[in-house]
Amino acid sequence: MKIIPGGVTAPKGFEAAGVEAAIKYQNRKDMAILYSEKPCVAAGVFTKNTVKAAPVKWDRKLLDESPYVQALIVNTGIANAGTGEEGLRCSMDTAKEAAALLSLPQSAVLVSSTGVIGPLLPMDRIRVGIQKLVAQKAHTPESGSDAAAAIMTTDTHPKEFAVACEIGGKTVTIGAMSKGSGMIHPNMGTLLSFVATDAVISKETLDALVREDVKDTYNMISVDGDTSTNDSFIVIANGMAENEEILSGSADYEEFKKALRLVNEHQAKALAGDGEGADALIECVVLHADTKENARILARSVISSSLTKAAVFGHDANWGRILCALGYSGAPFDPESMEIFFEGGGRRILLYKDGRGVDFDEDEASALLAEPEVRIVADVKRGGESATAWGCDLTYEYVKINGDYRS
Amino acid sequence: MKIIPGGVTAPKGFEAAGVEAAIKYQNRKDMAILYSEKPCVAAGVFTKNTVKAAPVKWDRKLLDESPYVQALIVNTGIANAGTGEEGLRCSMDTAKEAAALLSLPQSAVLVSSTGVIGPLLPMDRIRVGIQKLVAQKAHTPESGSDAAAAIMTTDTHPKEFAVACEIGGKTVTIGAMSKGSGMIHPNMGTLLSFVATDAVISKETLDALVREDVKDTYNMISVDGDTSTNDSFIVIANGMAENEEILSGSADYEEFKKALRLVNEHQAKALAGDGEGADALIECVVLHADTKENARILARSVISSSLTKAAVFGHDANWGRILCALGYSGAPFDPESMEIFFEGGGRRILLYKDGRGVDFDEDEASALLAEPEVRIVADVKRGGESATAWGCDLTYEYVKINGDYRS
Repeated sequence: MKIIPGGVTAPKGFEAAGVEAAIKYQNRKDMAILYSEKPCVAAGVFTKNTVKAAPVKWDRKLLDESPYVQALIVNTGIANAGTGEEGLRCSMDTAKEAAALLSLPQSAVLVSSTGVIGPLLPMDRIRVGIQKLVAQKAHTPESGSDAAAAIMTTDTHPKEFAVACEIGGKTVTIGAMSKGSGMIHPNMGTLLSFVATDAVISKETLDALVREDVKDTYNMISVDGDTSTNDSFIVIANGMAENEEILSGSADYEEFKKALRLVNEHQAKALAGDGEGADALIECVVLHADTKENARILARSVISSSLTKAAVFGHDANWGRILCALGYSGAPFDPESMEIFFEGGGRRILLYKDGRGVDFDEDEASALLAEPEVRIVADVKRGGESATAWGCDLTYEYVKINGDYRS
Repeated sequence: MKIIPGGVTAPKGFEAAGVEAAIKYQNRKDMAILYSEKPCVAAGVFTKNTVKAAPVKWDRKLLDESPYVQALIVNTGIANAGTGEEGLRCSMDTAKEAAALLSLPQSAVLVSSTGVIGPLLPMDRIRVGIQKLVAQKAHTPESGSDAAAAIMTTDTHPKEFAVACEIGGKTVTIGAMSKGSGMIHPNMGTLLSFVATDAVISKETLDALVREDVKDTYNMISVDGDTSTNDSFIVIANGMAENEEILSGSADYEEFKKALRLVNEHQAKALAGDGEGADALIECVVLHADTKENARILARSVISSSLTKAAVFGHDANWGRILCALGYSGAPFDPESMEIFFEGGGRRILLYKDGRGVDFDEDEASALLAEPEVRIVADVKRGGESATAWGCDLTYEYVKINGDYRS
């Protein structure tokens, strides 16, 4: 397994493009296509929000009912959420337009939107965008990068990544593009992550894999149930690597699972580190929890704590806020028998042990918190399970971005 | 029932004081006493955080086991949380010192702390502070105000309030002092609220009343289970109004309940409106929910949403963020059959109805959001229950305060 250059066009048979369609933003790419030469099996997980965006409803239906998919059209600027029946028609028309140009059935075209909730999509501009996308799509690294750039909203840089692994003597490649950025409070920024692979794998096996993977990757930057109206994580596999089918429980499965995890963990961290206004990536590792789920709950609680985030921004080693966030997480632990420490820049500083703060060098701790990546470790000493969650610091810039996002 | 001037010293027989003890802050009052001439029955609710501050442990024990209480000592600057056995000894010693000077049993003295998690209390300075408090305590409006000022941390002004009502021909008075302020994310700012009354009421009846009241007052500015290590709401009643005992279910009970609700709702709103860095009080009213608890969950979700708070700060009528926050609350509703509107400054603006945004005047909406009090109404049209929650906007100042609170 190795990291390779590129993104969604790294696997065999995938084409992409990103174009300017002026959906909301001017002078930037704001529509993207991902297309496969061959039909793909697909699996995905979507927002748990009661209010689901129209494209989420369309995609969920396709993944449940369509035998295969072959293309994905994404727009930014407008989320097509809170738009009722008319919004759903816009998503279906988007798929229909693209399908006609690509000579596919409508049921083979996924759609995705991100941006402001409320307005309807400007279908005239969407149509022009689709025409450009279909004309320009290509199996090149540049076109993958164009697509990754086009799906951004307030992200500061595109997020693409690719990994190659060996499955039964064949090279299987996985490539991804993702966007996030309203992630400093991960509960409301839309997360979109699209993963393409040339692996031969059944829909059922892929589906199981995706549901398992997401628990330790994207869900560890997004508190469960606190998701936006548009969150979508979709994996499509076109089988062009011609490996022997990856069967659940096999050694191939484990290898593919590891590769997929690497891709998604990388993307999840990249999303957290590029949270709106973020200066630093915060990683929280919980060690020795009694159950995996409790480890996840504790880790997520820390990286979701505004006061912890603000303390990291201020380079203030205020471990009390971490202890407090662990305490209100709902997962059991004994504050009288545990440790909290910071890691970063090659240093490790113990802050709290068995019920009491520990003397530490404030200047050294402050310097550690000034690193671009800060790791908070909580060892709860109860069992054998661990989990990692990712977030970022809370800055003035976050308030600025969100005080004036829509207008 | 009428609002009267004053705070905790408004009811008969209560004395208070606030003094400078230099616990952490210099040149400001940072210790307070509330004392009753006669023994009091007491009831209270405390943080649900797994990590409980030492004073919370002490007070919980007293309320469970002590037949009466007669005094309360509060310090700010240091929370006495995350301080283990030694911290508990500090709280007990505080009670012991005060008890000796007041000729009370140690078990009649409640203690409360708020401030930084981690450090131990400087007991030498606490002792000097107690001596001053006992020497200066008085049954005057000024001493009540001094105590209300002394319990503040980052609050911008003291929060006291008093109400008088008639119970069986006698005037019963209720007075309160509260502090909050880390409330823009209500989950982590310490909330302290102390209510004194001269009512004759049994401990059991008072306890039931407090537990009912808190659900619609303080818990509506603080998401359940997301509480600081020190949150405390305590009511003490000394019986000096000499009313006939207030019995559960009686008309007197209803009258007293209404008066207590008025006091606590006022204090809760004052805490929310004075959230750290806040420019505006946000009130969210959920109408026609199927159950009371679902109404509360929906209302709390909106006032806890960072993106909604930031939008109010930016005077941006971004109703999509409100819809989104309702959607991830976990409480059921149908986005296709509901309304969202703003109220404020005498105006009412419909934003969303039955699945779609409604045309509205952006300038008018922006002007409404510039008011010091903004009301968001969500009518979910499912049943007969409603609830109100209070929060505040998210501002640059919040990040500033919390990026540099401890250092």
